[in-house]
Amino acid sequence: MPELRQDPVTGKWVVIATERARRPESFSLQRGEAEVAPQASCPFCEGRESMTPPETYAIRPGGGPPDSPGWEVRVVPNKFPAFEGPMGEEKRLGLYRTRPGAGVHEVIIHSPDHRRDLEELPIEQVEKVLDTYRRRLRELCKLSFVRYLLVIVNHGRDAGASLEHPHSQIFGSPLVPPRIEEELAGTASFLGSVGACVFCRIMEEEQRAQERLIAENEHFVTFAPYASRTPFETWIIPRRHGRAFEIIQESEIPALASMLKEVLSGLSRGLGDPPLNYYLHTLPCRDDREYHWHLEILPKLTIRAGFELGSGMLINVARPEECAAFLRESKPLARA
Amino acid sequence: MPELRQDPVTGKWVVIATERARRPESFSLQRGEAEVAPQASCPFCEGRESMTPPETYAIRPGGGPPDSPGWEVRVVPNKFPAFEGPMGEEKRLGLYRTRPGAGVHEVIIHSPDHRRDLEELPIEQVEKVLDTYRRRLRELCKLSFVRYLLVIVNHGRDAGASLEHPHSQIFGSPLVPPRIEEELAGTASFLGSVGACVFCRIMEEEQRAQERLIAENEHFVTFAPYASRTPFETWIIPRRHGRAFEIIQESEIPALASMLKEVLSGLSRGLGDPPLNYYLHTLPCRDDREYHWHLEILPKLTIRAGFELGSGMLINVARPEECAAFLRESKPLARA
Repeated sequence: MPELRQDPVTGKWVVIATERARRPESFSLQRGEAEVAPQASCPFCEGRESMTPPETYAIRPGGGPPDSPGWEVRVVPNKFPAFEGPMGEEKRLGLYRTRPGAGVHEVIIHSPDHRRDLEELPIEQVEKVLDTYRRRLRELCKLSFVRYLLVIVNHGRDAGASLEHPHSQIFGSPLVPPRIEEELAGTASFLGSVGACVFCRIMEEEQRAQERLIAENEHFVTFAPYASRTPFETWIIPRRHGRAFEIIQESEIPALASMLKEVLSGLSRGLGDPPLNYYLHTLPCRDDREYHWHLEILPKLTIRAGFELGSGMLINVARPEECAAFLRESKPLARA
Repeated sequence: MPELRQDPVTGKWVVIATERARRPESFSLQRGEAEVAPQASCPFCEGRESMTPPETYAIRPGGGPPDSPGWEVRVVPNKFPAFEGPMGEEKRLGLYRTRPGAGVHEVIIHSPDHRRDLEELPIEQVEKVLDTYRRRLRELCKLSFVRYLLVIVNHGRDAGASLEHPHSQIFGSPLVPPRIEEELAGTASFLGSVGACVFCRIMEEEQRAQERLIAENEHFVTFAPYASRTPFETWIIPRRHGRAFEIIQESEIPALASMLKEVLSGLSRGLGDPPLNYYLHTLPCRDDREYHWHLEILPKLTIRAGFELGSGMLINVARPEECAAFLRESKPLARA
């Protein structure tokens, strides 16, 4: 079972993922050789359902038993979970604090197609993936030992993808992660001093300033954030103030699918299918604080080096205004 | 001039380094092609002193003018600084806050030898590099617009090194970085509740527990921290409680040089010269808080992916106890 250990100086928690642990000597062989399973042995392809742990959810329009072919979207537990099982007790070991890495860790397989990335799928399929996010978030939030659910995508080997077949992951952690706590604290502080949602204000400011705007539709606004941490950092924010993704309205799902397709296609076209990560920031489970859910996309085009690691400050080598202009000007191509 | 922009949600500052900025379209070509200057055109090699900005310090035992050959260690301003020049005013742009990226950014060239890494240099040369850290920290802390000085090393292309010739960098920032503020807050909080230095206590605990210990000498203790963020994270801590590196005693410099050589050699031997970053954590300039300076070494063996970026929590796939045992067992080889 994974273990959480607390840094005795900063109080931050680190996951020691023993289930995916490697022997120390394996690290000397690992560089530049990350395994990305090819199609021939891909456990996420249709017909290989027995290669994954039993599914927890699937869209299977023609019916049929679980873990059989015929699915459109399929959700399975991660074989090497970072969080697993019910809450255990926190222990003190002298100075140190540890607790079991309780929680869940699931994989959402975007479609049976091994090759097509999210933005290359038909819009109806992207809607199904988003609807699956919503359903799993609602379901997993019921688990008493899950405090936060983070949906992420790793695209490309350099962004940490270990399986090629396009998929998302949901990490259900027993703690609210530091990055979320910081955003919640910032939201509360802005609300207290200004009396408004900081994310709503940012969206208004970006629509007014225009220079960092990338795309807009009826329900969503996309822009390069003012203090972008990396070149081409991109946020997708819903116009309608809502604290949690799970309460997204039916009518907003097609608009989000369309926006996500457009933005990911633009990045892929403009930058030549860059490695990237994106994640959904939503309210913790059973939380009544104010928040405004959104998606953050971070292409992986530069390296976090000694300064970034030692300081916790980031150096971004591209101006967000130029990145946004570049993406606005990169015209859509016809796609299958 | 570089610019600092504040994230309006979390309050964290990001450096937009316009002097090293690249055009957006350049990122589509950049992947896997990071330039590492070969020896033939290396600006840090002896005889090419005119290729760098004028030196700010050098150890030149035979005398001779600045920016001429004959040096043993040489310090020059970074040609593409992340921080530069005197303090400017903070401005508000609607919601947003910006300030000039005031400060300094220097490069410390470890020796005239293009090929030999720090751990491959004679111990006397490593001592000279460490003495140069001390002298530059003392000197640059006098600048009123520098609030924090972070000394770092990026080793290997995958750890962000853009020039092959071994060197350190000193970043002089107008703000105390978040990671340092967190450690200072943790130190103050532990001191308040326990009445002792948290770093002193950690060192005692590691010497007692033994399992994460990597090496010890008269003045320094080296171990894998309990909540290691990455496989083979390694800390070197001075036994004598001291808040700032600059007040290191003469007798401690050879002991640190010897420890650094031993630890870096062990990592290189055990893991096959892995890419790595290390940095010196010391007290901010003109600060009277309690602290305990130390060195943190982070080999770059895994990728920070969507979960880490979106949560701010880290997943470590190796147990610190196993990593420490592996390094203890990796025996020294004879070296030139």
